[in-house]
Amino acid sequence: MLKLYGFDVSNYYNMIKLAMAIKGIEYEAVITYPNQTPEYLAICPTGKVPALQTADGVLIETNVIFEYLDELSPANPLIFGSAYERARIRELMKIVELYIELPARRCHSEAFFGVPVHEQTKSEVKRALLNGIQALSRAASFSPYLAGDKMTAADIFFLYSMSLASAVAKKLFEIDLFAEAPGAKELFAKLNAMPEARAIAKDQAAAQPDFKAYLAKAFAKT
Amino acid sequence: MLKLYGFDVSNYYNMIKLAMAIKGIEYEAVITYPNQTPEYLAICPTGKVPALQTADGVLIETNVIFEYLDELSPANPLIFGSAYERARIRELMKIVELYIELPARRCHSEAFFGVPVHEQTKSEVKRALLNGIQALSRAASFSPYLAGDKMTAADIFFLYSMSLASAVAKKLFEIDLFAEAPGAKELFAKLNAMPEARAIAKDQAAAQPDFKAYLAKAFAKT
Repeated sequence: MLKLYGFDVSNYYNMIKLAMAIKGIEYEAVITYPNQTPEYLAICPTGKVPALQTADGVLIETNVIFEYLDELSPANPLIFGSAYERARIRELMKIVELYIELPARRCHSEAFFGVPVHEQTKSEVKRALLNGIQALSRAASFSPYLAGDKMTAADIFFLYSMSLASAVAKKLFEIDLFAEAPGAKELFAKLNAMPEARAIAKDQAAAQPDFKAYLAKAFAKT
Repeated sequence: MLKLYGFDVSNYYNMIKLAMAIKGIEYEAVITYPNQTPEYLAICPTGKVPALQTADGVLIETNVIFEYLDELSPANPLIFGSAYERARIRELMKIVELYIELPARRCHSEAFFGVPVHEQTKSEVKRALLNGIQALSRAASFSPYLAGDKMTAADIFFLYSMSLASAVAKKLFEIDLFAEAPGAKELFAKLNAMPEARAIAKDQAAAQPDFKAYLAKAFAKT
C-alpha cells in the first residue's frame, strides 16, 4: 500500500489527502514533521513533507505526486483533457505554488507563530503576493473553477495555498487577497464546503496541539 | 507556427530553446524582456518569459511547456518511461527549479550587475543553495544524467540553473556548489559540450549588450 509521510497541519500534505479522497485511493499515513535526520533524508531527499512511498520508490513534490496518482488510478482524474488543457492545469498549479504559496510561506512564522520575519522579507512578500494573485486572476477563468467548469488539481492547490496566503496578507499587510481576483472568494468557499475538504479541516484542527509542541521544540533548538 | 517569447540571455528561455533543438521543433522567436505592459500581460499573465503561443492559446512556465512539447511532438522525448520514471524526471526538474534556481535568482542582480542584495537575503540564499544542491545530490543518480543513463528534461533544467547558481555561489559566498554533488561537475561539462547547447551559449553571449542596455534602463526607472 502507498505510504504518505507528512502531518495533518501541512498544506501540501493536505493537498495530497484531498486528492486521495477525491480519487478514492487508499494509503497509510506516516505522521512525520519535516526533518533532516539521516533516516528521513534516506527516504526523502529534501527532508520536507509530503513524500509518497510507492511500489517503485519514493516520490516528492505535490504536483509530481498528483501526476503519478492519476497514472496509478485514472478514476476522477486531477489533470485531464487535451494536451493544451492538461498544460493549462499544470500552469495554474504552478502559478499558485510559485507566486502565491511560496511567498506567503516566507512570512508564515510571523503570521501564525509570532516568530518575527525580517522587514526586508515582508516588503518583498507583500509585493510578490499582490503580483501573484493578479497573475492568477489573469490566468484563471474562475468559472467557477480555475481551469473552467470542472474541478482540477489546480483547485486543490488554490484551496490550501489561498488559505495560507490570504491569512498572511490579512494579518501582516491588512490586504484582502480575494478582492484582487473576481471569483476567487466564491471558489474558495465552494472548495471549503466539499465534504472531503471539511473532513481534512477537522483533522487539521485536531492536529494543531501536537504541531505546536513540535514547533516549540524546533524553535527552542535554534 | 509556435511563437516563443523571451530573450537569449534568459535561463528559462534557453531551456526551451534547447528542448526545441533536441526535439527538432520549429518556432518563431519573439524577442521580449519581462514586462508588465497591458499588451504583454494580455499574452502572458505573469509578464515573465518564456511564454509559448500555441494554436490553442498561450502557455507559460518552462516545465509546463516541456510537457506540452512532448505531447505535440513525441520524437526525442524529454519526460518518458513508466509512470514512476516520468514522476522522477518531474521531481528532479522541480528540485532544481525550487531549491537551486529560485534561491540563486534572488541574488543574481548583485552577482552579475553589481546591484546590491540585502544581507538578510544573502544569508537565506547561501543556506538555501547548500540545502538545495545536497538535496539534488541525494535525489539524482548522476550516472551520468540526473535520472540515469538517458538525458531528460531534468538535465536541461540542471544545465541552465547550475550555470546561474554556481556563479552566484562562487561570487557571493566563495562556495563551489559542484563540490557538494559528486558527478555534478562532469554532467555540467557534458551538457555544455552538446552542439545545441554551444549554439545557445553563442546566442547568449551575442545578446548580452542588448540585455545590459535593457537593464540599465530598467534600473534607472526604479
